[in-house]
Amino acid sequence: MYFSHMIAVVILGAGNVAYHLFHAFLHSEVVNVIQVYNRTSENLTGFSKNTTTTTTNISEIKDATLYIIAVNDDAIHELSHQLLHNNKLVVHTSGSVSMEELATKNRRGVFYPLQTFSKNKTVDFSQIPICIEAENKTDLELLETIAKNSTKKVFHINSKQRLQIHIAAVFVNNFVNHLYKIGCDLCEEENISFEILKPLILETASKIETLSPTTAQTGPAKRNDKKTIKKHLDKLNNHKEMYTLFTNTIIKTYGGKKL
Amino acid sequence: MYFSHMIAVVILGAGNVAYHLFHAFLHSEVVNVIQVYNRTSENLTGFSKNTTTTTTNISEIKDATLYIIAVNDDAIHELSHQLLHNNKLVVHTSGSVSMEELATKNRRGVFYPLQTFSKNKTVDFSQIPICIEAENKTDLELLETIAKNSTKKVFHINSKQRLQIHIAAVFVNNFVNHLYKIGCDLCEEENISFEILKPLILETASKIETLSPTTAQTGPAKRNDKKTIKKHLDKLNNHKEMYTLFTNTIIKTYGGKKL
Repeated sequence: MYFSHMIAVVILGAGNVAYHLFHAFLHSEVVNVIQVYNRTSENLTGFSKNTTTTTTNISEIKDATLYIIAVNDDAIHELSHQLLHNNKLVVHTSGSVSMEELATKNRRGVFYPLQTFSKNKTVDFSQIPICIEAENKTDLELLETIAKNSTKKVFHINSKQRLQIHIAAVFVNNFVNHLYKIGCDLCEEENISFEILKPLILETASKIETLSPTTAQTGPAKRNDKKTIKKHLDKLNNHKEMYTLFTNTIIKTYGGKKL
Repeated sequence: MYFSHMIAVVILGAGNVAYHLFHAFLHSEVVNVIQVYNRTSENLTGFSKNTTTTTTNISEIKDATLYIIAVNDDAIHELSHQLLHNNKLVVHTSGSVSMEELATKNRRGVFYPLQTFSKNKTVDFSQIPICIEAENKTDLELLETIAKNSTKKVFHINSKQRLQIHIAAVFVNNFVNHLYKIGCDLCEEENISFEILKPLILETASKIETLSPTTAQTGPAKRNDKKTIKKHLDKLNNHKEMYTLFTNTIIKTYGGKKL
């Protein structure tokens, strides 16, 4: 589908975020991705449709209304300077990079989808919060139009807040996933299927849809149940430091006495 | 509904586990809860139906096929000794208490539903794994019949394995929930709604339905992205110790160099 009034977009990058944005825009009636640029051709094969071309040559990048830089954090600054266009709207998609790291020759903004992307796992974009930021009101409105075409969850977030969200996401996504790995390792140690933990993992996540994390907290540390805590530490071979730090932090949070 | 061939059960205790077991059995055609005992009467009001009586007097406890002790870990041992019956099947519902802590005058077992229970949050029992253990085969079969009436997820688990599952549950439930609280606090610090993190939290939990936690791991620590890690530590006011421990552990797990 292509309408002449659609917003012409060039995506720069071919990683997970670029891939999922491209697919979110595929059936959009608002956005038309006219081109995808990447430094090398190897990852560009997943980005093909009738109205999209691909290129590895920065001087071949087409005129567009919006340029979305979806590359590694370290490459954003340089790529924004290499871009040959001027006075265009250029945004990046990073949680931890300030809008100010983009080259000043273009109008700057941020389009940050707050989700964990893996290429082999599809995501429902309508459930993904998108954090937008721009230097001027017109550009912010354009980003809002595009974001709202994919999701109801659009947030105006400045660079300082966005860094904080990115940190919070590291805690609730990266660190939580590492706790899942520890749970999985503990099961393997005693020849127990990791499947046994999965309903608890899902319930723990869905519980905070209706309860605050403080209300939802349970367990030996919350109860300051020293006897059970000792049993656990006696049984643990690894992860004792992690167990102790969490236990002390939870006991402190809920007013008990440390180990 | 009451059929004479139903298994007559007495529940001892009136806390969250007792409450959710009672309600899981309410419409069962296999189990009939004939009585609920509790030390005090205050929590017994939630346990009433036509065919169930309640009591606070241990000498009034009726004859039954199965006694389920669903009280605090510390009280299991004593209560199992106070019970006046002999040679009955008596089980407890605890993750961290050994079957051997039950009095030897009765046939012993364990009926441990692996889930986080809050009274003000209903749970779907059909999704809850139940870990069973018994001293003899006939009793184990009875527990299996009862468990399978509520859920497809029935596991034969010995006391050593059960303690390990309980520890793993502390990591993937209690500690994970505390990370949610940290995420919530970080949002509040910068006047951001905690709602923004909820889709990520749900996706993180559902991702491991199809990917192993190792495959699902992403983020600056996994990438050993020192620049982003430093940015986060510079911005953090609290939780630096937690951030550093996770980051170092993840870096070590995936083969990078520590901070």
